[in-house]
Order: sequence, then structure tokens, then C-alpha cells
Amino acid sequence: MTKEASIFNEIVNNRRSIRIYDDKIPFDESSVDRSLERAILSPNSSNLQLWEFYRVKTKAKKDELAKYCLGQNAAKTANELIVFVARKDKWKQHAEFVLNEAKKTFPAKLGKREKLVIDYYSKIIPTLYFSDPVDLTGSLKQIVSAVGGAFQPIPREVTATDMRIVVHKSVALAAQTFMLSMKAEGYDSCPMEGFDSRRVKKFLELPRAAEINMIVSVGTAKPEGVYGERIRIPKEEVIFEL
Amino acid sequence: MTKEASIFNEIVNNRRSIRIYDDKIPFDESSVDRSLERAILSPNSSNLQLWEFYRVKTKAKKDELAKYCLGQNAAKTANELIVFVARKDKWKQHAEFVLNEAKKTFPAKLGKREKLVIDYYSKIIPTLYFSDPVDLTGSLKQIVSAVGGAFQPIPREVTATDMRIVVHKSVALAAQTFMLSMKAEGYDSCPMEGFDSRRVKKFLELPRAAEINMIVSVGTAKPEGVYGERIRIPKEEVIFEL
Repeated sequence: MTKEASIFNEIVNNRRSIRIYDDKIPFDESSVDRSLERAILSPNSSNLQLWEFYRVKTKAKKDELAKYCLGQNAAKTANELIVFVARKDKWKQHAEFVLNEAKKTFPAKLGKREKLVIDYYSKIIPTLYFSDPVDLTGSLKQIVSAVGGAFQPIPREVTATDMRIVVHKSVALAAQTFMLSMKAEGYDSCPMEGFDSRRVKKFLELPRAAEINMIVSVGTAKPEGVYGERIRIPKEEVIFEL
Repeated sequence: MTKEASIFNEIVNNRRSIRIYDDKIPFDESSVDRSLERAILSPNSSNLQLWEFYRVKTKAKKDELAKYCLGQNAAKTANELIVFVARKDKWKQHAEFVLNEAKKTFPAKLGKREKLVIDYYSKIIPTLYFSDPVDLTGSLKQIVSAVGGAFQPIPREVTATDMRIVVHKSVALAAQTFMLSMKAEGYDSCPMEGFDSRRVKKFLELPRAAEINMIVSVGTAKPEGVYGERIRIPKEEVIFEL
């Protein structure tokens, strides 16, 4: 095993979800800066980066948000709460940004690959992400996909719900980079899904279309902050080969 | 910065999604063993571990799966393809397993926390995960949540679709641990969502209820396997403080 692999192994093995933090231990806020900067380097669907991160740092705001996290200890005792938000609604702006940045690196005479990139962001992305209130578009895309798919492999995830899932997955990739990074920085974390998303969105002044992916608390674990031994399904029951 | 943080920083910065691998370079398969063992240590919703990992290693099977990945280079040239699968349908078995394992560690006389754990896995989890074909249950839960939520913070994500999203997020957390681990082991990866999930499920003999989360290819990058410079939305537009 490489040295990098053995250190990474330690990080992964030492990370546990922490329910009680020790707020007496000094907390270096810059570890969150660095960890979020790493989080945004995570791979994500079509590189649209449909994510936002809200750091809640002041005592009053943290106390309010902890209430919306159903008062759980993992929220109440944390040094910071970071809200990971899925912004599917920003697909158009982000697609434009990514395409414009890519174009800056293109040669004067466009090759096949450059043309594919332009097509991807100006035609395929809108086809995938555009939706109407009742997702009639999604139903039509499903029919097209089912007909085309009878003859050749074709993507099946084309509805508005499918695209919501795609965005949430990408935000989760960033969340895991963040949590592992915090452990590498010497801090603990806990991802939470037990919250009132409606109140959290109002609290962050987010539009209706934004969705809360998860809320991650950070700090230094109290020994009693780990609730029990790690329990895992035996790997033989989840890892298969063919 | 700690030594761990600086090595983690390198891993994150060096990981790029790779579209063309060099199959002339020897590949150590045990790096995938170790990386999947790390992936299953990822945090996940209610610790239900509703995930499965299918390693596709033989040439014939890889060639077939690459076709279902729409023939993309990132699949065709990889040393291995690992299919990350979301198994929401296994919630009951997994909840029983986790509760039974937890019970083994409980003292003879149950305290408040032990009783909460038993309640959580035998009552709350079934309430969240049980669903019927048209998700009438989900609609009823939404009404209960809306009424209760008028007076106090309450979870809003209670439909079958919400729970699908929850499971996909957890699988994505494992996928990111896996990809970072492969980089720590000295190898490259590419997460793919461009595939025919219907054909992939048939290929893996998965039931209807299983869902493909993503397919991750692994190997060693060819220099031309990185498609262009890294493009990121400026951090000021995605990271906020309050």
C-alpha cells in the first residue's frame, strides 16, 4: 500500500458520525474553508455544479437552525453547521458558465471534440433539465426513450424526478469529500437528514425550487459523542464480482 | 495544515475524471478490494447501508457493460467497471440486521438510549420506508407532516420518491469515498451516469426495485484521458456564511 493509501485508510477508519461535540476545544474555522474548497473539486453530473453551501457560524443562527434539525445533539453542540443545498433550478446559468469557460480554451478552428462540447451544453443539457410544472416533458421524454431503447442502449433517467436525483447525488459526492477533509484536518462531523426542510429553506431565504441535501455539523468529538460500535452488513452480502 | 490534511489535499486535487485509460499499465486489483472496503465505512442514512457494488472484471462482461454505457471511452478502456446500486427495497432486512447487531451490545437492563434505538428501527424506519404501488401512504404522510409542521419543526421528506433520493445520496457518499480511495491507491476513475439502466439491471440480474446509482470506471489515465482544464464556478457564488 502507498503512503497516501495508508493515510487515506486512517482518515476513513477514524471518521465516525459524532452526536456530541466538545465546544471547550478550540476550533480552527479555516479547516472549513479548506474543506469546502476541496468539496467543490468533487466530480459532479455534467460538471454543472448545482450545489451551494451555507455555513452557519453565529450562536444565534446556529441555535435557530438546531431547532429546525429537530433539536438533535449533533446540531446543538456543533461549532458550525453547513447546509448542503441542491440547486437544480440553476442549470441554465451554470451550463452557460461552463460552456463559456470551456470555449476560452478552444482552438480557433473547432475540432470534433469542441463541437461535441458545444452541442452537449447547448442542446443535450437543456433537453435533460428543462421541465414544466406537471412534467409533461418528462413523460414525453420517457416515451421517446422507451421507443429508442427498444433498438439500442439509451438513457432512461429523463423525468424531472430523475434529474432531482442526479443533482442530489452530485451534492452528496461533495458532502463526502467535505466530511473526509474535516477528518483529515483533525475534526469530526455528522451528516443529518432529520430536519424541517421547509423551515430551513425559509431560514436561508432560498427559493421554492432549492432543496436541502443534508446538513453537516462539525466540531471535536466528546468521547461519549460516538453512539456505539460501528455496525456493517458483511461485505460478502454487498460486494459482488462478475 | 496537518500532514494528513496536506496529503488529503493532494488526493482531492489530483483526482480528475478520466475518459481514456492506458490498459498497458499493470493494474493492482487489490486496490479495488481495499477501496470498496473503505466505501462501505461511509456514513449513510439511518445506517441502513442500502447499497450494493458489482465489480465487472472479465473482458467479455466489461465489453458488454461498456455498450450499455453508450460505448463511452471511459467505460471501454477501463481496467474494471464498478456498478453502484441503490437497494431501497432491502430496508426491512437491513433494519433487522442493524437492530440485532446493536442489541448484542446493549446492557441487560435497557436504558433510555437503547429504547430509542429499538423504537427507531422497529417503528420509525418502517413508517418512513413502507410504501404502496401508488404511494398513497406517502400522500397520507405528507398530510400528517404538513399538519404537524404548522406547530413545530417536522421532517417533510416522507414520500416514496423522497426515500429514493435518500438512498441515492447515501450510495453517492460511498462512491466518493471509493473514487478518492482509488486516487490514494495511485489509480484514476470516472463516475458515469450515461447508461441504459434497464439493460444494466438485466445484465446484473437485478430486480425491478433496484436502481443504478452510478457506474465508476477505474484504471490508469492516459495523458489525453483528461478532457481539458478543470472548470469551477467561483467559490464566492456557491459558498455563503451566516
